[in-house]
Amino acid sequence: MLIPIDRNNPEPIYRQIMAGTKKLIDNGSLKVNEPLPSTRRLADRLGVNRSTVVRAYEELQAQGYLSCRPGSYNRVVKRRREVPYLEDRGSLIDWEDISTDRAGILHRTFCRYAPEGPIPESGDIINISQLDLDPRLYPLEEFRRCLAHVLASKGPLTLDYGSHKGSKILREIIAKRLRLHGISVSGGEILITNGAQQGIDLVTRLFTSNGRVIVESPTYSNVFPLLHFNSSGLIEIPMTDEGMDLDALEKTLATTKVNLIYTIPNFHNPTGITTSHSHREKLLSICQAYRVPLLEDGFEEDMKYFGRVPLPIKSIDTHNLVIYLGTFSKALFPGLRIGWITAHKDCISRLTALKRFSDLGSGNLVQEVLAEFVTRGFYDLHLKRLHRVFRIRMQLALRTMEGHFPDSVRWTRPAGGYTIWIKMPRSIDEGRLKELMSRHGVIVSFGGYYFGSGDLSRFIRVSIAKTNEEEILEGVKRLGGILREIDQSSN
Amino acid sequence: MLIPIDRNNPEPIYRQIMAGTKKLIDNGSLKVNEPLPSTRRLADRLGVNRSTVVRAYEELQAQGYLSCRPGSYNRVVKRRREVPYLEDRGSLIDWEDISTDRAGILHRTFCRYAPEGPIPESGDIINISQLDLDPRLYPLEEFRRCLAHVLASKGPLTLDYGSHKGSKILREIIAKRLRLHGISVSGGEILITNGAQQGIDLVTRLFTSNGRVIVESPTYSNVFPLLHFNSSGLIEIPMTDEGMDLDALEKTLATTKVNLIYTIPNFHNPTGITTSHSHREKLLSICQAYRVPLLEDGFEEDMKYFGRVPLPIKSIDTHNLVIYLGTFSKALFPGLRIGWITAHKDCISRLTALKRFSDLGSGNLVQEVLAEFVTRGFYDLHLKRLHRVFRIRMQLALRTMEGHFPDSVRWTRPAGGYTIWIKMPRSIDEGRLKELMSRHGVIVSFGGYYFGSGDLSRFIRVSIAKTNEEEILEGVKRLGGILREIDQSSN
Repeated sequence: MLIPIDRNNPEPIYRQIMAGTKKLIDNGSLKVNEPLPSTRRLADRLGVNRSTVVRAYEELQAQGYLSCRPGSYNRVVKRRREVPYLEDRGSLIDWEDISTDRAGILHRTFCRYAPEGPIPESGDIINISQLDLDPRLYPLEEFRRCLAHVLASKGPLTLDYGSHKGSKILREIIAKRLRLHGISVSGGEILITNGAQQGIDLVTRLFTSNGRVIVESPTYSNVFPLLHFNSSGLIEIPMTDEGMDLDALEKTLATTKVNLIYTIPNFHNPTGITTSHSHREKLLSICQAYRVPLLEDGFEEDMKYFGRVPLPIKSIDTHNLVIYLGTFSKALFPGLRIGWITAHKDCISRLTALKRFSDLGSGNLVQEVLAEFVTRGFYDLHLKRLHRVFRIRMQLALRTMEGHFPDSVRWTRPAGGYTIWIKMPRSIDEGRLKELMSRHGVIVSFGGYYFGSGDLSRFIRVSIAKTNEEEILEGVKRLGGILREIDQSSN
Repeated sequence: MLIPIDRNNPEPIYRQIMAGTKKLIDNGSLKVNEPLPSTRRLADRLGVNRSTVVRAYEELQAQGYLSCRPGSYNRVVKRRREVPYLEDRGSLIDWEDISTDRAGILHRTFCRYAPEGPIPESGDIINISQLDLDPRLYPLEEFRRCLAHVLASKGPLTLDYGSHKGSKILREIIAKRLRLHGISVSGGEILITNGAQQGIDLVTRLFTSNGRVIVESPTYSNVFPLLHFNSSGLIEIPMTDEGMDLDALEKTLATTKVNLIYTIPNFHNPTGITTSHSHREKLLSICQAYRVPLLEDGFEEDMKYFGRVPLPIKSIDTHNLVIYLGTFSKALFPGLRIGWITAHKDCISRLTALKRFSDLGSGNLVQEVLAEFVTRGFYDLHLKRLHRVFRIRMQLALRTMEGHFPDSVRWTRPAGGYTIWIKMPRSIDEGRLKELMSRHGVIVSFGGYYFGSGDLSRFIRVSIAKTNEEEILEGVKRLGGILREIDQSSN
């Protein structure tokens, strides 16, 4: 076996042995089933350590080139032949045709959303559109410690199927936190989901396929295609400065059968509006009067960095018609995909059934690690830090808007959370906004996404979640430039 | 501040300081907003290290008892009051009434399945019913190393939202592995899902709400409630010893509109049957003739431990009507919940849209770690070990059956995988089987679960996935006792 070894080559010796052996196999010099020299013999011949040859053989085994039984020689293995990839083959099935009409809306929205934003012309683009937490604020070291501890102390258990409902210890922890938010709940009434998004999916699949859903207008953009798919219809109720227009809501409920109302009472996405306690009471009493379940999205419950905001609607829900959604995606790690639902036990039991048969339950390991992370106090310490940071970021964003936006523009002053909603003097379409963003080097979110229909919008959503002070300052200034340009073109 | 410190107490000093401080706060000796002594002063007074007091204060901060701004004293915080948990409150909503009829089946099946099996009378129960891998065979140490490496090298990126389709590197790796199984595919035609179960959910949600689905009879038990929920109807085609009865299939297709056929060609669950290459060709040509998509569940593709079995149907799918499902749950870690779908790009694009809006994509971190695990060759080494172990376990199970089952009983001889299907001389109902299992100290799976209807069954499913040789030997012997008892009662 002739294998060239070059000691000046930065490539480790064992990898040079691997490469040489592969070459001999691939060019047929070594035949299938042919035994290789023993590790001792090859090491002698090449003048290297025996352990170096052992390592090379082991890796070649792992890669499927060699195989050996204990005590015998390594032999060349007949490898599975990899078929080539052939592009652009047609299909006998018309996949559009076979999917439901509802699925069409889902797919068209998907194609419209991705890729998001304009293609950057240069590297100098500031993105103030994203609603996921700035990764520079991740408590990565603390998470790593919890992960190592959980794997060492619980081991295999964390990698097997867990409960369909989710990790018991995590559910108990979430229940305790919710009780601190005034929600009377036990771990048994909590279902762990793949983020709050799966919560919306499960609830609307189960309860709205034969009834309509009311949403705020504007609202979280991702609910539109999902509700078009899951529900028998969608009704938009306008947002006022105080939250959903409750008079309009009552009028609609008086004439239409509705199965669910979806609301975001804190730091509403996209407007940033937080409703008052009395608005919450009134909304709940309307739901009671019409016996309609209320889906309360508490996705930023933990982002109350300017101090107190009213307790969740679920906390005053004595008749148990509120389904409450929470998540670790907005204040911690979005990529873990861990959220939760709490509701009356009869409701949770049905949602758990759907969860069980749709994906057998959420990933176990990350739930156990999150539980450890919260138990050790890391989550509270992290929140404290976030609050300090975002108090400053939000104040900076609002102050910069005051200094750089034209008089014709209005915007909200959120009591927490990440998003600010900007109203322009006139509508623009998405294409025009993209062109302006590309020219001014800033990415914001087109307001039209947050309404059920319409290609034009008078609104822009800014998010400060993923940008630091410097980026906020510069991004908002650039946005000011866009708004001044729109303002002038409208005169 | 009077805090008792007991140096003979095994409780660490900092925790004694914490407990003492909490007590003073809770009993009102320390008032809200009252400043605490500086860490230096308290350390002097208690005669402890200053770092001990710092740690106690930090933990008290994390737990919400204290707060401080840089450079100032720690002060007692007004804590959020935890509301009590009130059990057994009713709801104004009738959650059964508001959910769809289809949801009712889902929920009733869920309630029937959980808890599974009999309540053990003693600790001496052998469970040969479970289809998840024996955790004693987990390559935990290798996984831990990959996890540490990924967190250290990729850091925050792995905890943010990833692509809706799933990690690009993992998709490329899966595509390469599939090409080794004869499937011509690129990473772009792969969608990562929360296990194969979510694959079945996504496919049937998208393509079968306005059409029927054909399944093998018996088949994987979890598809029944899901298909009743997602599809407009379910048709069962009997299994023969060679796989789905293709004559019966053709007859059905000739008279009924069908949107999807679901099949498990390798180590079929529950029967353990593997179909021949010619059966696969014939099934595919029938699908082509009727232009019906075929959902191929390759959940145990990697468990071919007795050597070659035919390549997947997807490998001969020149007209692209096969949707192929794979998973890491059966040969590696079920709790990671990582599976995948591959199909024609028009199909994958639509499935990705539904995945995006139903949960925004699968968890990022575990995908990156899996990619590392496969890249390093750990997965192939692990499979090699599994093959060695399960070759022996399956042979032992079959040999023990021959020695201990009565002559009236028949069973399958699987070419790989985990399950063996046992046919009894007469039907029994679930209650009777449970009673027998409880008495004989063995848990098996009631055959009735694998048929769409019927409380009686002549079948039992045994799985060797989670049991070692000793347990298989004893479990199968005990099952022999049950079968002899059934056999005698039928004479």
